[in-house]
Amino acid sequence: MNINGPRGTQDILPGAVEQWQYVEHVLADICRRYNYKEIRTPIFEHTELFQRGVGDSTDIVQKEMYTFEDRGGRSLTLRPEGTAAVVRSFVQNKVYGSPNQPTKLFYTGPMFRYERPQQGRMRQFVQFGIEALGSADPAVDAEVLGLAMNSYQELGLRSLKLVLNSLGDAESRKSHRQALIEHFTPYKGELCEDCQSRLDQNPMRVLDCKKDRDHPAMATAPSILDHLNEFSQNYFNEVKAYLDEMGIDYVIDPNLVRGLDYYNHTAFEIMSEAEGFGAITTLSGGGRYNGLVEEVGGPETPGIGFAMSIERLLMALEAEGVELPIEQNLDCYFVSMGEVAKKKASGIVNELRRSGIQVDQDYAGKKIKGQFKSADRLGAKFVLVLGENELENNQINVKNMMTGDQTEVALDQIVDYMKQEMKEA
Amino acid sequence: MNINGPRGTQDILPGAVEQWQYVEHVLADICRRYNYKEIRTPIFEHTELFQRGVGDSTDIVQKEMYTFEDRGGRSLTLRPEGTAAVVRSFVQNKVYGSPNQPTKLFYTGPMFRYERPQQGRMRQFVQFGIEALGSADPAVDAEVLGLAMNSYQELGLRSLKLVLNSLGDAESRKSHRQALIEHFTPYKGELCEDCQSRLDQNPMRVLDCKKDRDHPAMATAPSILDHLNEFSQNYFNEVKAYLDEMGIDYVIDPNLVRGLDYYNHTAFEIMSEAEGFGAITTLSGGGRYNGLVEEVGGPETPGIGFAMSIERLLMALEAEGVELPIEQNLDCYFVSMGEVAKKKASGIVNELRRSGIQVDQDYAGKKIKGQFKSADRLGAKFVLVLGENELENNQINVKNMMTGDQTEVALDQIVDYMKQEMKEA
Repeated sequence: MNINGPRGTQDILPGAVEQWQYVEHVLADICRRYNYKEIRTPIFEHTELFQRGVGDSTDIVQKEMYTFEDRGGRSLTLRPEGTAAVVRSFVQNKVYGSPNQPTKLFYTGPMFRYERPQQGRMRQFVQFGIEALGSADPAVDAEVLGLAMNSYQELGLRSLKLVLNSLGDAESRKSHRQALIEHFTPYKGELCEDCQSRLDQNPMRVLDCKKDRDHPAMATAPSILDHLNEFSQNYFNEVKAYLDEMGIDYVIDPNLVRGLDYYNHTAFEIMSEAEGFGAITTLSGGGRYNGLVEEVGGPETPGIGFAMSIERLLMALEAEGVELPIEQNLDCYFVSMGEVAKKKASGIVNELRRSGIQVDQDYAGKKIKGQFKSADRLGAKFVLVLGENELENNQINVKNMMTGDQTEVALDQIVDYMKQEMKEA
Repeated sequence: MNINGPRGTQDILPGAVEQWQYVEHVLADICRRYNYKEIRTPIFEHTELFQRGVGDSTDIVQKEMYTFEDRGGRSLTLRPEGTAAVVRSFVQNKVYGSPNQPTKLFYTGPMFRYERPQQGRMRQFVQFGIEALGSADPAVDAEVLGLAMNSYQELGLRSLKLVLNSLGDAESRKSHRQALIEHFTPYKGELCEDCQSRLDQNPMRVLDCKKDRDHPAMATAPSILDHLNEFSQNYFNEVKAYLDEMGIDYVIDPNLVRGLDYYNHTAFEIMSEAEGFGAITTLSGGGRYNGLVEEVGGPETPGIGFAMSIERLLMALEAEGVELPIEQNLDCYFVSMGEVAKKKASGIVNELRRSGIQVDQDYAGKKIKGQFKSADRLGAKFVLVLGENELENNQINVKNMMTGDQTEVALDQIVDYMKQEMKEA
């Protein structure tokens, strides 16, 4: 009987995994240059963390979480996103007490949301994200936006759009909230069911509704940008000035509100404009979340971050036809003939590998021709042959498959010889 | 109200995470040299996979799994180990059809077992493991053992013991099983409850019991090595001959049976003999599992693998006082004074980072003295200063903190200048 992997999950196999390794390597290197350090939090958290840290009114918490009780009866949830757990860890481990502030962190790992699986939306998906905790300097907002844009650009994407908005501070949002309620209430009966409850709970999210997007009241809805108080307006202007200094283009969209409850001031999304990228054009999003650290039990601490889906990044790279520089060839293949040579080969192969050289050999009982075929299929740069003749002379025949040259090398010289050859190759 | 991480899990923070990154990087590089490719399987699987692939009679399946129903009513389980899922993926994706056999895979990732947390035994822990599927060549067994030992040795461990056994093929095990039942049945009432049921289900695991270890019947129990048939004996001899050729030391322990049901022929564990390593001395274990692929629904395919706990690896490194070569210093710290310089700095910092250089700056509104302190605390190799004077002259002051040298560099030359300096540093 066959057992398949769970619906909405995928296996990443050799041949595809190299792309994941490559983009994760580049992203980690970019974080190194921006001085963001890795943090690893558990796969599951107490359910309450997400109820408080993502927000009880969000789709994620209401519909999409993998929640279960452990054998001790505690309610646990597979993390649906990265920020809440990073903030929890920041508080629990008192990282705010370190002299280096803001605390700049990144993470990469699987997240889980129970949704209908579709292209670019899996139940288990991988997010890369960063968080900068402890500074309310608009220059940090620009740094986070810059890191996000630079990540896509260095990997080779060109058709990118950075969409920016300000959600203002609490005062600005309160004023906007009041205006939204006044504006939409006359049409309440015409809005979808979700929007009717959003109008009470979080009216800003009505602007984000996909069902009601064409309702005439949408076009005339009050803009948050007309409700920013002086502080919020100045903050937004500063962020834009830093982006201009960094040469980063953006468009303003006052309807950009993001799905999570806890954002304020800067909010942004990065979209792919590549043809054939698919229906979901958002590559990543983020924003400022002053107040979240207190919500999770920590001291007053401003914060900002963003997260991207690695799946969608890879889809965008494919849509734009970007070729990642991935090396697939093998350094060496070791061909041996006969039982004695095979034993001897094991020792030499072991030595070569220990000295840094990539080597493979046959474990399927293939004849010499089959072994050469394997070497060819694996793209071996060098083929080392140990047959009866070579064994008698204590030599190995080395073929350089790139030049066609061959030479005999003494058994006890082979490791040094190959180290030199690999250096030159 | 504070929310802590779940019991038996841990956060890995900057300052500790660099060790994880380093060992994972070395392990991945060793796999590259041995030509094992990475595979990534989901965090959870259908529960049935582990019931079949780990074994219904094991402690893992009976007591330790995180099992839950998803919103669609399917029984899912957080993976308690890596092999079953790799084999499931090998079957589901028909990897056995690829011309390159054996299929050599590695994985690194979190695993989950609900146990009483103690040092070196967390409920979420990280395993690195390899699997070689599709060859019954004893040389593969030796390769797997060699990779395992080499991993510890390259990372710097010295106090290692490789413990080896053969569990034989089905015929040998059947004969041994019969002998064990005959031997232990007279003492059945004196054995622990678990062993009483093991005596029916899987008598070999009585040999592994920690409670009954000192029962006199243990010392006189029949050894599997006396029940190996000719094929199994030859197989074991071949494995040992390859290990000798590779210069790998081992000790034979006929009582080594491993906790999982599916092993046959080669079984091994690697122990730390370092003083102060703690009560659990096993670093890793593995063995051959011909038959598992069929159990999961695939074609007859031999297999062998091993897995190590990264937590225990790090504990062993600490116990032996091994210093990992981890670079903590920052390349550059950018000091700026005044609003205009700070804006300008953002653009330059952005350019430096994009060209590969690691730079950080102040986001806490610190004065110049405080900024220099930050640079010092972060171990900056270079400090770049943009004050009013420098701004007027379109220059940046560059201090090499390693030599004490300083120099003025034109603003539009700074990126090239620093690239050159970093190359030489």
